[in-house]
Amino acid sequence: MNDSNSMLICGLMTGTSLDGIDCALAKFSVDSKGKHQMEIISSLTDEMPFEIKDKISSLIVSPDKVHISDISMLNFALPKLFDSSIRKLCSESGTDIADIVAVGMHGQTIWHDPTADRLRNMSTASTLQIASASVLSALSGTKVVADFRSADIALGGQGAPLVPIFDYNFLSCADEDIITLNIGGISNITIMPAGCSEEEISAFDTGPGNTLIDYAMRRAYGREYDRDGKIARSGFLIPDMLEELMSLPYIKSKPPKSTGRELFNPDLIRQFMLDNRYLPEDIVRTLTEYTALTIAENIKIFASEKATIIASGGGIRNLFLKELLNEKLPDSKIVTSDEYGIEGDTKEALCFAYLAYRRLLGLHGNVQSVTGASGKVLCGIIADSR
Amino acid sequence: MNDSNSMLICGLMTGTSLDGIDCALAKFSVDSKGKHQMEIISSLTDEMPFEIKDKISSLIVSPDKVHISDISMLNFALPKLFDSSIRKLCSESGTDIADIVAVGMHGQTIWHDPTADRLRNMSTASTLQIASASVLSALSGTKVVADFRSADIALGGQGAPLVPIFDYNFLSCADEDIITLNIGGISNITIMPAGCSEEEISAFDTGPGNTLIDYAMRRAYGREYDRDGKIARSGFLIPDMLEELMSLPYIKSKPPKSTGRELFNPDLIRQFMLDNRYLPEDIVRTLTEYTALTIAENIKIFASEKATIIASGGGIRNLFLKELLNEKLPDSKIVTSDEYGIEGDTKEALCFAYLAYRRLLGLHGNVQSVTGASGKVLCGIIADSR
Repeated sequence: MNDSNSMLICGLMTGTSLDGIDCALAKFSVDSKGKHQMEIISSLTDEMPFEIKDKISSLIVSPDKVHISDISMLNFALPKLFDSSIRKLCSESGTDIADIVAVGMHGQTIWHDPTADRLRNMSTASTLQIASASVLSALSGTKVVADFRSADIALGGQGAPLVPIFDYNFLSCADEDIITLNIGGISNITIMPAGCSEEEISAFDTGPGNTLIDYAMRRAYGREYDRDGKIARSGFLIPDMLEELMSLPYIKSKPPKSTGRELFNPDLIRQFMLDNRYLPEDIVRTLTEYTALTIAENIKIFASEKATIIASGGGIRNLFLKELLNEKLPDSKIVTSDEYGIEGDTKEALCFAYLAYRRLLGLHGNVQSVTGASGKVLCGIIADSR
Repeated sequence: MNDSNSMLICGLMTGTSLDGIDCALAKFSVDSKGKHQMEIISSLTDEMPFEIKDKISSLIVSPDKVHISDISMLNFALPKLFDSSIRKLCSESGTDIADIVAVGMHGQTIWHDPTADRLRNMSTASTLQIASASVLSALSGTKVVADFRSADIALGGQGAPLVPIFDYNFLSCADEDIITLNIGGISNITIMPAGCSEEEISAFDTGPGNTLIDYAMRRAYGREYDRDGKIARSGFLIPDMLEELMSLPYIKSKPPKSTGRELFNPDLIRQFMLDNRYLPEDIVRTLTEYTALTIAENIKIFASEKATIIASGGGIRNLFLKELLNEKLPDSKIVTSDEYGIEGDTKEALCFAYLAYRRLLGLHGNVQSVTGASGKVLCGIIADSR
């Protein structure tokens, strides 16, 4: 399966929205011009068992009341789930697991705070992804590359976003401005002007993705998400709520910047959820507007609106959100990454497969202009337990 | 500094007793008979700043009331301390840090529970050492090998002890029964009958090391430890207390077994500390007796008393504890590892340097007869961020 020039790599992503285990299998190679090529073999999104999802969710929602045993246990339980997802993917695609050169495992983020508070003159900027690479490697028998963000933060970077190097290699264009947009739990964009060099890329989190909408849906309707954006479409905008949420300094602050559920969590909207004056569909409508507006504003302020926007992530299936984006960005051409052969849900998994490929080749994974790190780093540690 | 056959490796250990950062630098090579050789270059024990020690201590003592940010922050702060300890060691020994092939970093254990509780049919056996290898590698510019215990646990092992492969290579003897004893926070022994094979080694934690004595010293005297065992020597044994502590099933349970501050923590002796009938020196005396007795009993039950016991670890400087050991094991010859060129405090640091060496050579690090794992594993992930 792996000729001398190509490597079969599996990517594994579990985002902050906890909507499943995204797995993708792709073959990477270098063409005669030295450019990296990717052939997508297969992908799947595996369910995360409720008990595990629930435990992770409570870590993220209440990070101040944690039992260490839960973190340690999840660090071992997640790789077991991942191992079974990889085997399922192999079985569905007729791949022998022994042909997989490496697994690029993002791990589950449970803390991400790249801001530089200080303790005893030491920066406390940090990020924490759990799921032990040693364990996955011992179980699957494959090499595992993991912990992609830490080295960048150690050199003063934000440790995020890491997708730009993937976007640059596979989606940038010589004669067209490209913006890639991923709407996961959090939304992020990569801005690549036509023919830009790696150093000219900018990329950052724009603000919420599905996280606030999903929380409101669970809380008010007991549903996991707003299917096709139907609830939002049936509601009315609450101007005061939108205005208050838009006033968060993060939204218009200058990149590099990155965020997570530390900022965009239920606490942010609890007062509105508890206020009887607001109907739940109006809250969902407003949060959908908020999500679209924060994306559009960031594109307008920090990029050119006249661009092709290649959208991916679960949020792009929210048709109402997509309509709002089109309405707010009339000069942009919004397409989905599916049109580029990259299914929306699996883009990040492919990205971490590619980062693992780069790590094995000894190539840096961070884009300094994006993360703000003081140097290029090889992203990821390598486990090879057997 | 590194000829074709030898590698300069730094080992870093911070134990559960939090008594400092043990660093050791050694050159490893393979001799003409294929046997591993170790030349110790230098070692030091660096202080751990009070704020960091305090934060780690509260994680260990109250694992149920943790803020994730503390774990994440320590995961980044510890490698910064380690980087500065390595540079100090280099400077003191006239070593160029660029000559160090790799750092074997144990990391700070904050959870270790290799027992097999189950959640959703998954074993929750796990271990958690913090201090990001990616961060240390980014800062020091060296390769870092870390997370030595996880793969063994993933294959059903206890993930501990890991020192036996070091003991076997450097301290076992063809015509003498050897028992190595390390008295750190927890005490452990490696039993190597004369001329034994790797599969014939047994090794396990016997119970407390300094952890209970140190806790009582801090609580009753505001001191970090019982210097030379003077307080213990001035007290009287409390038979009821000793009897109750000896009744813990762990003490005489059959190996493989391993333990930590999950069992041997302040809760275990709080009732005695709070009881006005007991004098503090009597409590310290009893805990010292308890520590010696648990070591001696385990040697008597699971090994041969007629052996050379090579002792190491901070506890061996407790002269009263050493006397008690001699008294309880009259047929053994107790020596310190110093006599073998291995200073007591740095043995574990040297062990993790050696495990890193083995990892780089692609050699297993666990001894299956000791940990109980179903297979040999390469212990440790490799970070090489720059």
